[in-house]
Parts: sequence; C-alpha cells; structure tokens
Amino acid sequence: MNSVSDSAVAMPDVQSSFDTRRLPIQRVGVRGVRHPMLVMGADGEAMPTIADWELTVALPAEEKGTHMSRFVAQLEHYRRRSMTPALFCEMAETMLPLLNAQQGDITAAFPYFIDKVAPVSGVSSLMDYQVQWKARACENEETWFELTVVVPVTSLCPCSKAISEYGAHNQRSHVTVSAVLQQPVSIDLPTFIARIENQASCELWGLLKRSDEKYVTERAYDNPKFVEDLVRDVAMTVKNVEGVSSFRVEAENFESIHNHSAYAVVEG
Amino acid sequence: MNSVSDSAVAMPDVQSSFDTRRLPIQRVGVRGVRHPMLVMGADGEAMPTIADWELTVALPAEEKGTHMSRFVAQLEHYRRRSMTPALFCEMAETMLPLLNAQQGDITAAFPYFIDKVAPVSGVSSLMDYQVQWKARACENEETWFELTVVVPVTSLCPCSKAISEYGAHNQRSHVTVSAVLQQPVSIDLPTFIARIENQASCELWGLLKRSDEKYVTERAYDNPKFVEDLVRDVAMTVKNVEGVSSFRVEAENFESIHNHSAYAVVEG
Amino acid sequence: MNSVSDSAVAMPDVQSSFDTRRLPIQRVGVRGVRHPMLVMGADGEAMPTIADWELTVALPAEEKGTHMSRFVAQLEHYRRRSMTPALFCEMAETMLPLLNAQQGDITAAFPYFIDKVAPVSGVSSLMDYQVQWKARACENEETWFELTVVVPVTSLCPCSKAISEYGAHNQRSHVTVSAVLQQPVSIDLPTFIARIENQASCELWGLLKRSDEKYVTERAYDNPKFVEDLVRDVAMTVKNVEGVSSFRVEAENFESIHNHSAYAVVEG
Amino acid sequence: MNSVSDSAVAMPDVQSSFDTRRLPIQRVGVRGVRHPMLVMGADGEAMPTIADWELTVALPAEEKGTHMSRFVAQLEHYRRRSMTPALFCEMAETMLPLLNAQQGDITAAFPYFIDKVAPVSGVSSLMDYQVQWKARACENEETWFELTVVVPVTSLCPCSKAISEYGAHNQRSHVTVSAVLQQPVSIDLPTFIARIENQASCELWGLLKRSDEKYVTERAYDNPKFVEDLVRDVAMTVKNVEGVSSFRVEAENFESIHNHSAYAVVEG
Repeated sequence: MNSVSDSAVAMPDVQSSFDTRRLPIQRVGVRGVRHPMLVMGADGEAMPTIADWELTVALPAEEKGTHMSRFVAQLEHYRRRSMTPALFCEMAETMLPLLNAQQGDITAAFPYFIDKVAPVSGVSSLMDYQVQWKARACENEETWFELTVVVPVTSLCPCSKAISEYGAHNQRSHVTVSAVLQQPVSIDLPTFIARIENQASCELWGLLKRSDEKYVTERAYDNPKFVEDLVRDVAMTVKNVEGVSSFRVEAENFESIHNHSAYAVVEG
Repeated sequence: MNSVSDSAVAMPDVQSSFDTRRLPIQRVGVRGVRHPMLVMGADGEAMPTIADWELTVALPAEEKGTHMSRFVAQLEHYRRRSMTPALFCEMAETMLPLLNAQQGDITAAFPYFIDKVAPVSGVSSLMDYQVQWKARACENEETWFELTVVVPVTSLCPCSKAISEYGAHNQRSHVTVSAVLQQPVSIDLPTFIARIENQASCELWGLLKRSDEKYVTERAYDNPKFVEDLVRDVAMTVKNVEGVSSFRVEAENFESIHNHSAYAVVEG
Repeated sequence: MNSVSDSAVAMPDVQSSFDTRRLPIQRVGVRGVRHPMLVMGADGEAMPTIADWELTVALPAEEKGTHMSRFVAQLEHYRRRSMTPALFCEMAETMLPLLNAQQGDITAAFPYFIDKVAPVSGVSSLMDYQVQWKARACENEETWFELTVVVPVTSLCPCSKAISEYGAHNQRSHVTVSAVLQQPVSIDLPTFIARIENQASCELWGLLKRSDEKYVTERAYDNPKFVEDLVRDVAMTVKNVEGVSSFRVEAENFESIHNHSAYAVVEG
Repeated sequence: MNSVSDSAVAMPDVQSSFDTRRLPIQRVGVRGVRHPMLVMGADGEAMPTIADWELTVALPAEEKGTHMSRFVAQLEHYRRRSMTPALFCEMAETMLPLLNAQQGDITAAFPYFIDKVAPVSGVSSLMDYQVQWKARACENEETWFELTVVVPVTSLCPCSKAISEYGAHNQRSHVTVSAVLQQPVSIDLPTFIARIENQASCELWGLLKRSDEKYVTERAYDNPKFVEDLVRDVAMTVKNVEGVSSFRVEAENFESIHNHSAYAVVEG
C-alpha cells in the first residue's frame, strides 16, 4: 500500500482509466439526492420546494467510471435559480460538457402547491400535488422534456350508484398524467391540473366548510365515474392540450369497499 | 479457507470487552430482518406468512457489545415452529440465556389472512390484515405480550350525509388496535377482528359481486361514522374482550374529499 | 331512485354498456392485492410467500368497463397451486376468456428465500430477495414472461481504496436484474442469483460468525467495484444465461459517505 | 350557488351534538397534511421547506366531534410566518381556543438543510436532515416541546477491523435523537447536529472531492464504532446539551454485510 500513500500529491484517478469490457452504460450518476428547488410560477414568483433528484449520463464503453461529484456540483450551481422547464432543459444540456458526456438525463420530483378557493364558502387553502420534471439532453438533438403530475381526486362508482337504493361508494383516487411537451415548453401547470380535476367525480380541496362539503358530496354523486371513465376522459382532455406530443394517463382508485385498488392506464 | 478458520481461535472478541462509559443500553439487536413465520390458526393449521422481525436485548453498562449473530440464530431455531402467542413469548424468554441478558424484546409484523364470505352472494375470498406481535421477557417476571392489528374498513361521514340532498362521502379507513393481553394469551384473532369490523360503517371483502356491492353501499349509508365514532365504538368493544388488560385504538380515514387524513386515538 | 330499487332482481350491468368515446384502454384491472403465493422450488417443494399482485386486461374501445371481481376470482382459483413461471403464464392465458379480453398482464412481487451457508463457519441461514414475475398473454401469440430479482450485495469503492492509506468505503447495494425469458421458461432462480452475487465485491448472508466476518471483509477489500463495474459485470453474466432473450441490469449503491445513492443501468 | 349558501344557515351541525358514550378522546384531528413551512435559521433568515403536519386536540366525553376544517385554517394562518420553536409552541396554544379544546398537539416533520464545507477541498454543498418538531399545549401548563433529528452518518465496525488483515465493513447509519427542551427553547440546530455527527465514525457530505474521500475513508477507519458505541457516545453528548430535559437516542446501521440492520436505543 506504500505506493498508494506516496501518490497522495498526485492521487490515482481510477474512474478515468480505460475499460476493456466493451460495454457502454446507458445511464450512470446519482439518485435519491434531496435538494431544494425553486419553481417559477405563472405569476413570475418562485415557489420554493424540495425535490428528489436523479442526474445521470451515458458512459462510453471505453471509460471505466463517471465523476459523481460533478452531478452534485451541477445541483449546487443551479440551486438559487428560478426553474422553468426551459431552464431545467438547459441544466441537462450544460451537464454534458461538465461530465464529458453525449447524453444526459435529469429528473426532479417535488411537491407543488396551488392556492384553491372552496366552491361555495370561497375560503382559500393550499392543495398539494406531486410533480415530476424529466429532461434528456443529447448532443445535436433538441432536448426532450416530460411533465408528470399526480392529481388526487374523488371517484364515485357508477355501478354502486345504479344498483343501490341510496348512497354510492366513493374514494380518493390518484390520476397520474405524464406528457411529453414540444418546444417551446410553455404549459401552465395550474390550468393543466384544473383540466384534469374537471374530469373527476369531484376535485379535492384542503379546507372545506359545511356548505362546501354539501357541494362536493352532491357533485360526486352527480358525476359517477369508473376508473375506466377517469382515464378515458382525462386522456381526451390531455390529447387536446396544445404542446403535448405524447401522453400516458393512469388512474388508481383506493377502493373504499376493498383493500386493494382499481387501476387503469391509457397511452397515446 | 483452512488458515482463515484456524485463525478464528485467536480472533479478538471486541464485543466482550469491558465498557467504561457507565451507560446501560435499553435495547440493542437486529431490525428489519425479513424471515418466514408460521402462525397457528384457530383450526390448528399453520398459516405461512412473512414477518418483519426486530429482536433486541438490554445491555448492561459494563458490556461493550451484544452478539448480533445469535439473534438470527434464534430466528433460524424457531423457523419451522407453528407460532402461537405463547410460543412467541417462550422465544423471547429463551433469548435471554442465549444473549446473556436480563431483558429481551421480540417484535414480528406480518400479513395475516382470513377467508371471508361475501354478505349476499356467499362467494369466498381472502382478506389481508397487518398484524404485529410483541413480547418482552424479563428475568423473574411474567412475559408481557401485545397484539396489534390494522383493520381496513369503510367509513361514511355523518355530516356529509346529514347536509347533502343525496350521497355521502366515504373512504377506506385503517382502524389500528393494540391490546396488551393477560396470561394466558388466548385471544381468537378472526373473532377479534370481526368485532372490530362490526363497528365500522361497513367491513371490507376481497371479492364482491353486484348483489354484495349493493349491500355494502347501503349498509355504509345506514351506518355513518365519524373518525371519533370509530375509535369510541371500537374502544368500547375492545374494552370488553376477555383477557385485554390495556389497549390503544387509532383510526385514520383517508378522506375522499381531501388529500389528507382524519385521525383519532383513544387509550384505555 | 325508485326505478333503481325495482331493478333489484335484475340489477343494471353498467360495466357492460356501450362506450362511445372510441378510446381503447391498454390495461385495466386490480392493483395492490396482497395474496398468498406458493412458489415451486428447484427441489420440487413449494415455498409459501406473500405476493403483491396486479392483474389487468386490455379493454376495447366499445366496452365501458371490465369486471373487477373476476380478477380476484382468478387469484382465488390459483391460490393453492404451486407456481412455476409456466403455470404463471397459464394463469395469464386463462384470464383472457374469463375477462373476455384479447390481452392480459399479471404481475406478482414477492419475497423469496434461499438457505445459504456461511463461507467459513458453514452455519446456515436464510437470505431474502425481492422477486417479481410478469406475464403478458395475447391471443394467438406466445405468452411473454419476465423475471426481476433484487439482489442485495456489498460494494467497495475502488477509488477510495486506491487513494487511502488504509480502509475503503463500502456499503449495501441493490443489483436489480430484469430478464425476459424464452420458452420454455426454465431458469433456476438460486443459481441465477448466485451468478449475480458472484460479481459483487462480496455477497451477503443472514448469519455470519466472526471467522465469516473476517472473510467477507477481506473479500470485499480484494474485489473493489464501482457501480459501473457492478452493472457491467452482472450484464456480461446475465447475457450468457441460457434462455435470456433481453435484460436490464441496475445497481444502486447506498453510499456510506453520502446521503444519496450512486446508480447505473445497462440494457441489452 | 346562492341557494346552496343560503341553505347553509340551517345545516345540521352533527359534530356539535351531545355524545352519550362517556368516552373522552385523547387526540383527534388531521394527519398527513403536506404544507409549506418557513424555518427561521440561526442567521435570522427563513429556510423554506415542506412539512408533513399532524394537528390534534383532546375531545371531552360529551362532544360528538371536533371541527376538522379549523386545523387546516390554523395551518393557513401561520403559513407565511418564520417558524421558531417558540412560535410553533404559540401555534399549538392558539389552537386551543380555536378548537375549544383543553389540550392540543402539533407535529411537523420536514427536511432541513445545512451548508457544509468538505473537510480537505473546502467545497460547499448542502446536506439534508429529517427534522421533527412536536408541541403539546395544555391549559394552565407550560407548553411542552420536543425536537427530533435524524442524522445520517458512517459507521465502521470495530470487530471487522480487529479481526481482518485489511479493510473493515462500514455503512450508512441513521442516528435519531429526540430531545425534550426546557423553556426557553433556544437550541441551535446546526450546532446540535454537528455535535451528533462528531460522535460517528465519520460524518457525511453531499459533495466530496478525491482529497476529501481519502480523508473520510481514513477517518472512519481510525474511528470504528459499534451501534452500541454510537448510541452511548451520542447520548453522553446530548445529555450535556444545555436545555435538554430528557432524550432518546437511536442508531440504525444499514449493515453492508447483511440484508438487515443493527439497532440500538438509549433513553435518558
């Protein structure tokens, strides 16, 4: 081990040595990095949130390893910037020379909040959504960007309503929409989420007064939807959003009458 | 490998050295061990399941470390036994001499299945419950045993029903009951769970035909319960179960109209 | 609501009504069903485990809904069968007429145990692995089957070893291998896992005596591997397993010197 | 919507009705509310984070239900305030008249970031910690406050080092410290965390250059600690922190040579 200790001044750079296995690696990097993120709002104000980050690059067959610390350096570099999808794409693009790579992916998953107004009382409260941004930069290609959002809603079962004298089972459901966006990536997230919510038996709020609770109860009963209806109606909405080039819609109903979920997915 | 095993004779036993910090450790051992478990049923047949185990002992101030491998050896030793609460307590008791300890705890958390019959159609299906057993053995004391079970049910909101023209929001809820049992620990788990389920707006089944779905929808509507009603009614039931010396009842409603839970706890 | 109550004898079948949205659904069914599973071992003995199941079918554009209860009935039907990949594929195939579908997927994710012998002391203990089976049946096509297994191992950092006077950081890593298998699906799981473990800095055991601990410590130090080395070496091994038609190898190192993971993926 | 809001005048208030079961509820409220939080830093600047909130009150035997929407209103009311433990206690105290209760608990669990400087290279990066604040307000009593922090560190096994020719297994560990703080609650969190980290084999950083990696590898090798050493050394440190009236120290080592954890807990 002496030779190692002698080399303290000029430490060996194992990662940079030549690899003989002739096997390129599609993606290598860091995962599970919890780091703050500033998300630019439609009003031009930045919303602070906490994201779970993954940053990876493609590694050619002849390189033994990537340089892991540079991914975290890239995160630190962008920490105080107000993030738009465009800047997020730029962050993936500037990662390429930094890591000496030809392709790179960045994913950030974070809670996102919208100030909602209760339907009858008009009281305000925040509603939280899980959002994910994903960018892939390739040399000499336009950067690819995908938005994913989990929208929690109420679903009320049409079968239960039709066959029962009174009542109908309902439950919280998660509608997850992934949309690949064309350049320029200019989707308005609150509007996009509102269009999704509008397809559910009823949308959710953080704070409801009794007059609101009457409203949401009756609205859900008036709009029964199977998990199949949910994915179809949301898919038909998402398809018509300008700038969406492809999409995937999932719905999971956490059934109130079972200990498992009803689930459906449509891709287009 | 011979030379290695030979050198084992003279290997230092760091764990057994004397500790000078004068600080006893309440519990030390292994956690997150996933291991099979056989749970003896009321019918005398063993139900195979997979448990998440934690085994710990108290460590006196003068000992530097415990012997971690012996916990896993204890698990292996009991692997093929059909477990009753009594045998589980014995497992905690025999751990004491093995680890040279005066107090020891074992916790096993596992899925438990009950074959249920749908209320109208009579079709059979399994329903899964999360169960936990916890035993504490102390020298010269009777071993303490606690049963915890998470019972998923339907809750239907009395306020929503009262104020709405039609319908009522309902959702899946988790009722978690922890009960310290007196010796002899002889509680019948399916009966215990059935008594808890009976206090909900409605119980759950794995498989429901349309005639059953009509039944559960109407039954829930006929039995509206707040989260407060749930914990109170379950607490009054558990209090009267023979052999229960103390208990804790929690209920969490995964509200279908909000993105958060309503929660209540009663201890007695 | 009277018309509904009158129809109690002949309940409306809402799911079977005609759908006008002209949107087929790729997959619809149940998810998060926790149900027992018997996995046939190489020795012809069935290992009981608990699986998390998802069963879905494709729904044509003109059908409003699928029949959710039939998925659970299918699960009940196969509950006491010893499962092989072949029988699992059959289970997906017999789901098609049951659900009146042209395509169907079944996924089961479950803990799987192997009795391992410690490298020096020779003591026995169980080691747990997370396994997933996935089958897709299509009318007039051979059923597709994919095996996924998460193999926890030790990884020891070559860079840390090379630059340090003594020691080297190491940690638990998850190597996740997904392999699409050709017919007949005849892979031996314990052998497959052993081949993967053999590529790590060191494999793991449930129970290690001190002589074993010396062995695994030195073996890991003698076999330093980056996350890049792990995926490459495992990929080269998996590629050569008979019957594997395509694969994906991921490795995640839960770094002992950071609060995040190093991660790599190779597909072939 | 006028008619709806008008009918609110005469809506039944089910929660406020009299309860005859004679069973007080220790705690009832909301749980799993994801909401932004501003945490006041030592430098007087507020750090934005996202907390998982639970707000509950005690409910007397004669009251049927609490008023769930008021908990969320309380959250909204404090949303833009820079939170100190003192203000957090005030938030629990002002919840009592709002809910007409004699006792109330608030818990907030959130990621917390510290800008750390790498030990040799001096580069800066954020390190994340999971923190929880818990306050209990009672009429006519001083409000009780508990701080919990999960500090991820490196642990290196003394036994593995002592018995092996070279190397030593090490891994990420979680040290979880809960401390009940006396009034005035004035603990400095970064200093408190640094004192805990100082007891580990080595602390963690987000970004390490090679010179740093050499340092942390050797430092861990020079400071081997069992899980028992970790809890004892951290307990002796926490005991001496001014203002701590009681504490609990847990350590969990995610063993690199096993698929389970070593675990210990000391209370004082």
